[in-house]
Amino acid sequence: MRFAKGHGTGNDFVIVADPENNRVLPRAHVAQLCNRRTGIGGDGLLRVVRAAKHPEGVDQADRAEWFMDYYNADGSIAEMCGNGVRVFVRYLLEKGLVDGEFVPVATRAGVRDVQVTGDRLGIDMGPAKIFGGATAVIGGKVLRGRHISMGNPHLVCRVDDLDAFDLSTAPEVDRSLFPDGVNVELVGPGRESVRMRVHERGVGETDSCGTGACATAVEALGGRGTCTVTVPGGQLTVTVTDTVTLTGPALLVAEGHTL
Amino acid sequence: MRFAKGHGTGNDFVIVADPENNRVLPRAHVAQLCNRRTGIGGDGLLRVVRAAKHPEGVDQADRAEWFMDYYNADGSIAEMCGNGVRVFVRYLLEKGLVDGEFVPVATRAGVRDVQVTGDRLGIDMGPAKIFGGATAVIGGKVLRGRHISMGNPHLVCRVDDLDAFDLSTAPEVDRSLFPDGVNVELVGPGRESVRMRVHERGVGETDSCGTGACATAVEALGGRGTCTVTVPGGQLTVTVTDTVTLTGPALLVAEGHTL
Repeated sequence: MRFAKGHGTGNDFVIVADPENNRVLPRAHVAQLCNRRTGIGGDGLLRVVRAAKHPEGVDQADRAEWFMDYYNADGSIAEMCGNGVRVFVRYLLEKGLVDGEFVPVATRAGVRDVQVTGDRLGIDMGPAKIFGGATAVIGGKVLRGRHISMGNPHLVCRVDDLDAFDLSTAPEVDRSLFPDGVNVELVGPGRESVRMRVHERGVGETDSCGTGACATAVEALGGRGTCTVTVPGGQLTVTVTDTVTLTGPALLVAEGHTL
Repeated sequence: MRFAKGHGTGNDFVIVADPENNRVLPRAHVAQLCNRRTGIGGDGLLRVVRAAKHPEGVDQADRAEWFMDYYNADGSIAEMCGNGVRVFVRYLLEKGLVDGEFVPVATRAGVRDVQVTGDRLGIDMGPAKIFGGATAVIGGKVLRGRHISMGNPHLVCRVDDLDAFDLSTAPEVDRSLFPDGVNVELVGPGRESVRMRVHERGVGETDSCGTGACATAVEALGGRGTCTVTVPGGQLTVTVTDTVTLTGPALLVAEGHTL
């Protein structure tokens, strides 16, 4: 099987082109390909299929030529992924399968337009929902934060000493507020430029989280504007209007075939 | 750059062929290739160079055609790696660069002979040095174990309830005995067939550790014999005589080129 590998600020994906939708990808096969030690390795897998050839993409085929068939690393199907769709478009561009400033992509969450600006790709992540305050406890220290949803839940905590916290274990949060867990963002001082670290629920500390950067910018700006969010994996730009746009690098690093 | 990726019981490597030693691999470049999210990903990198063409291999060129130029994932140079040299030989075999039942490999630790038995490859890891008892503390529980060296230090602890322990943080050990840290093996009941989990110093719990499996077999057998050691990443066979032989699978999973 031929594959490519790419990432956006360290959120990485195995990419498999199957334009005519000829290939069935059993869950175990996806998990094997995403295994970092015995496979290629990735946070997820992106299958590139013509929208007209995929039962979940065919209704979007008049607006988008390509469907992103997205799988989590464990082989389960997922709807959308902000970094995933940006890497997906990078692949389409590199292969000459699309061009132009705006690339529409069919996904299980509907058509998403990705804006191409040189080596940076931007995507409309939809509006944020801003809830009230909540606390996270890290290493015995109680942090006040704000609960913000980008479709998934975030708890954004402003801190003065960003590097002082140990995120190797999950922050303690109020389980009655967050029954399915929550991603916890620690955000340093600043308004239009901030540093962020993130603990993703069920994963641990990661180098980047697209929705987490969006929630962080919403909290940092406190209204409309543009915020540069620096994560361990790189730099993301978030613009907040009636919706939230996430822009950042997306690269292909390798391609090859399995043996 | 063209590459292959392979693993032995989950210990994985990026393989770069450079037979004529034309390529300089700066430390940062190796680290980038071994980065699991922004590169190919691996526990280390194996550069395949003709022994006669490498300054550290030329003195071994009369006994071994190929030199394993081995790097850790951080780009530092290392002498030898039991799983690495087995994956190295798998690559030579797949590419038709060697044949026969015994394949000599030049390394920074001298020539090592790898024995080919179908899809399993065996290597002489040298003799074990058996020291006295020591303790490891895991989750408040004190475990008695034995200090065994396979060139690197191991503390092998027999336990009845192998799956009950949390190895997400490093076991506490006597730093005066192990100033550079120690790999801690938890080993279930049995003599000629045991299960093992391992916490590798500076790394964390891993799916496999070749020298750890050897130390485990030495402790389980209590003398000469053959022991099957089942690790999370697969099954290894260890034979103890005057020396210790490690045998197990070694596979290539993919090949391609960087972009």
